[in-house]
Amino acid sequence: MTRRTDQLKLGAFLANSGHHVAAWRHPLAQADASLDFAHFRAIAETAERGKFDALFIADVVALWGHHHDALSRTARAEHFEPLTLMSALAAVTTHIGLIATATTSYNEPYHIARKFASLDHLSGGRAAWNLVTSVVSDEAWNFGREQHIDHGDRYQRAEEFHDVVKGLWDSWDDDAFVRDKASGQYFDPAKLHTLNHRGEHFAVRGPLNVARPPQGHPVLVQAGASPAGRTLAARVAEVIFASASDLADAQAFYQDIKARAADLGRDPDHIKILPGITPFIAESREQAQALFDEFQALIDPVLGLRLLADTLGEDIDLSGHDLDGPLPETPVGQRGSRRDKVLELAQKENLSIRQLYLRLAGGNPVIGTAADIADHFEAWFEARACDGFNVFFPYFPGGIEVFVDQVIPLLQERGLFRREYQGRTLRENLGLPRPANRFSRP
Amino acid sequence: MTRRTDQLKLGAFLANSGHHVAAWRHPLAQADASLDFAHFRAIAETAERGKFDALFIADVVALWGHHHDALSRTARAEHFEPLTLMSALAAVTTHIGLIATATTSYNEPYHIARKFASLDHLSGGRAAWNLVTSVVSDEAWNFGREQHIDHGDRYQRAEEFHDVVKGLWDSWDDDAFVRDKASGQYFDPAKLHTLNHRGEHFAVRGPLNVARPPQGHPVLVQAGASPAGRTLAARVAEVIFASASDLADAQAFYQDIKARAADLGRDPDHIKILPGITPFIAESREQAQALFDEFQALIDPVLGLRLLADTLGEDIDLSGHDLDGPLPETPVGQRGSRRDKVLELAQKENLSIRQLYLRLAGGNPVIGTAADIADHFEAWFEARACDGFNVFFPYFPGGIEVFVDQVIPLLQERGLFRREYQGRTLRENLGLPRPANRFSRP
Ligand SMILES: Cc1cc2nc3c(=O)[nH]c(=O)nc-3n(C[C@H](O)[C@H](O)[C@H](O)COP(=O)(O)O)c2cc1C
Ligand SMILES: Cc1cc2nc3c(=O)[nH]c(=O)nc-3n(C[C@H](O)[C@H](O)[C@H](O)COP(=O)(O)O)c2cc1C
Repeated sequence: MTRRTDQLKLGAFLANSGHHVAAWRHPLAQADASLDFAHFRAIAETAERGKFDALFIADVVALWGHHHDALSRTARAEHFEPLTLMSALAAVTTHIGLIATATTSYNEPYHIARKFASLDHLSGGRAAWNLVTSVVSDEAWNFGREQHIDHGDRYQRAEEFHDVVKGLWDSWDDDAFVRDKASGQYFDPAKLHTLNHRGEHFAVRGPLNVARPPQGHPVLVQAGASPAGRTLAARVAEVIFASASDLADAQAFYQDIKARAADLGRDPDHIKILPGITPFIAESREQAQALFDEFQALIDPVLGLRLLADTLGEDIDLSGHDLDGPLPETPVGQRGSRRDKVLELAQKENLSIRQLYLRLAGGNPVIGTAADIADHFEAWFEARACDGFNVFFPYFPGGIEVFVDQVIPLLQERGLFRREYQGRTLRENLGLPRPANRFSRP
Repeated sequence: MTRRTDQLKLGAFLANSGHHVAAWRHPLAQADASLDFAHFRAIAETAERGKFDALFIADVVALWGHHHDALSRTARAEHFEPLTLMSALAAVTTHIGLIATATTSYNEPYHIARKFASLDHLSGGRAAWNLVTSVVSDEAWNFGREQHIDHGDRYQRAEEFHDVVKGLWDSWDDDAFVRDKASGQYFDPAKLHTLNHRGEHFAVRGPLNVARPPQGHPVLVQAGASPAGRTLAARVAEVIFASASDLADAQAFYQDIKARAADLGRDPDHIKILPGITPFIAESREQAQALFDEFQALIDPVLGLRLLADTLGEDIDLSGHDLDGPLPETPVGQRGSRRDKVLELAQKENLSIRQLYLRLAGGNPVIGTAADIADHFEAWFEARACDGFNVFFPYFPGGIEVFVDQVIPLLQERGLFRREYQGRTLRENLGLPRPANRFSRP
């Protein structure tokens, strides 16, 4: 394969005390970071110093699990709402993109279109929407439903939701606002477009009460992995937040998505695929491994068993079993591919219960020196397994500082990453085209 | 009556180019202010320099009217969404309160509880929610409804919505988050409270995924004037945004609300009543009047007639009539008290159509020197017609600058207004108590 001429796209994933589930307990992490705006501001400033494309924040519209005993061992029970946090960060940054997650399952398209348009204006064209369909039924319970919307319906709703939002963003031509003091005409009514959407899930008249966003449309990010998720992604995503555990899987996903997009007539370069990755960095590989081990040792078994149960099936109770013994025969559940993979892994590597939950909790780490991390990034990028990464920093604030101070310069020296922001908007920095307005007459 | 020993509470009302409907056309106003964050930031900084209690922003979740010809003569078709704007302003201010409007008619309580809690944390305890029930059916059309929810139902929904939001804010005891690195306990599950609300309009399980707000509850602001609106206000409002055209009306409203609150066992001092007021300020009264006249002269008749029709009844078409002649016999409409007042005014003062719409558009101005404005504020305050004002600046940015430079010092000299912020939170600055958590055990 020829060497790539484009550059890595990097997202900085925000997480309270750090991405590692026990991060808050580690001496390097700030334990009371979750609702400390100064903490997030410092992270944003460091990310911008490192020329990251964007900050990225996940979301759940409920407590992150209803097993309070396990949850109480994490820093996940309290967090900022993404759009309010990103709006505040917009005011204290100038170049970095702001990717906020919002679910289509428990929102209304008018609110979402409006808030992201507002954020795009606030930030001068740096907003992005991570469209998710939600995973936990805890969210349903907060919105008058007994259980989560079915997977298929969820994606149908998401498709329609998405189309309405895009339609609302096109309510105004880019040049609709003339603001002519002399004539008294503020906007040209011929350049205002009323959507009048009537679909299966939504009836939304419009128009939006916000001018067309600076980016035309805020960047569309998507994270689903199922066939329905991929179909939507291939049609509409501009950034895909992927979870890929090994190179071959990542390459297969990459090729699949790019091919689907091409089939739909899209330029495959206009979808950037960014797997999540957690770098543990130290002066030597041994020290990096030791650092990782320190974090892993802080995972309380109550929490570890819960993570395991969440994957194997909610109702599995492993608390009576020897943690250092093997997994008992587990009932066949309905949880699908992730569950099967984990069971397979346990068997193949002959893992104890503790080893298995540590493996799950450890996520997808890359452990080594700054050069090792840069090598890994380069290898995946050149192998066309990705277009960049969504970087999960194991702990804050130090985890991003060491990355920006040590890994970013290596990537820059190798020509793999920008030294300065090229564009003014997130879209420009990502190399994505500005969408035309569907309603505008030329 | 004895002189009051408390001080004025002042809100600075945000409006794009200014509060006057034709402000954007005036040479003193910035015409392209609506989505310019730097503009709002400058206003916020000036308001904070003037020691205002809070910034205040109104809202509508639709275009501000569907008569595009009239709307296109105003700067109201584009505006920031309140929560995103206030979050951004939180990051660049330190003392001033942030009052954002959100309707209970087209929102979900979980989202609203969460966003205001998030803003309260972001801002270190400066958030306030202006609870409104909406007025225009244009909003209904953006949320799958054919028409606006009925007035009575709207308030029933609002009551329940409010109670759910407050319940969610109490999801956590103030000291629930222990974050003990050694033991691994981040929060104490006994201090987490699950609401489990099941009512007529909402089923919301909770808990909220945000720690208890710094203020306990963000300050509750309310703006309804009908009996149902007053009932809700007396029970829950801490600040009332009132519209009062003359002193006697204002005093009556003030007494009514304070008496209702006392009847409910509340301390009447814990409701601050702030009528809206628009000061036109110049070196002399003549110049101030001339300034006001300049703004009025910029109101296009298309817009003026629309304002009149909005008050007299949507379907009234006055465009065929002589603007300088009297109002024709108008069909009896269903529009209620505001309509009748306007018809009465036209008859009593023998106003032409133009004079009448100018009167409506002019709003509630106080025209004069800085000393005149200060006198007016003092008179209303001492007459117990209000506890302060929500100041509508006719034009931005100059309108607030002249107020802060000239009127605020006079109010300070007279002991009517603070020289420095007393408290850290909006609640403290307003002199409001921090609410106890309904679920906490002592
Ligand atoms: C990497 C990744 C990140 C995700 N982040 C979120 C999130 O922050 N909030 C959320 O509600 N769902 C999130 N999801 C869930 C997806 O939106 C989707 O609901 C879920 O993956 C199920 O759809 P699928 O079967 O297509 O994967 C994420 C999914 C993936 C793969
Ligand atoms: C001074 C004042 C300001 C208001 N501001 C808003 C607003 O910004 N957005 C909104 O939807 N409704 C607003 N309202 C409408 C009220 O929430 C309420 O829906 C309306 O006044 C009808 O209720 P009422 O009959 O009790 O007055 C406002 C009302 C008043 C009196």
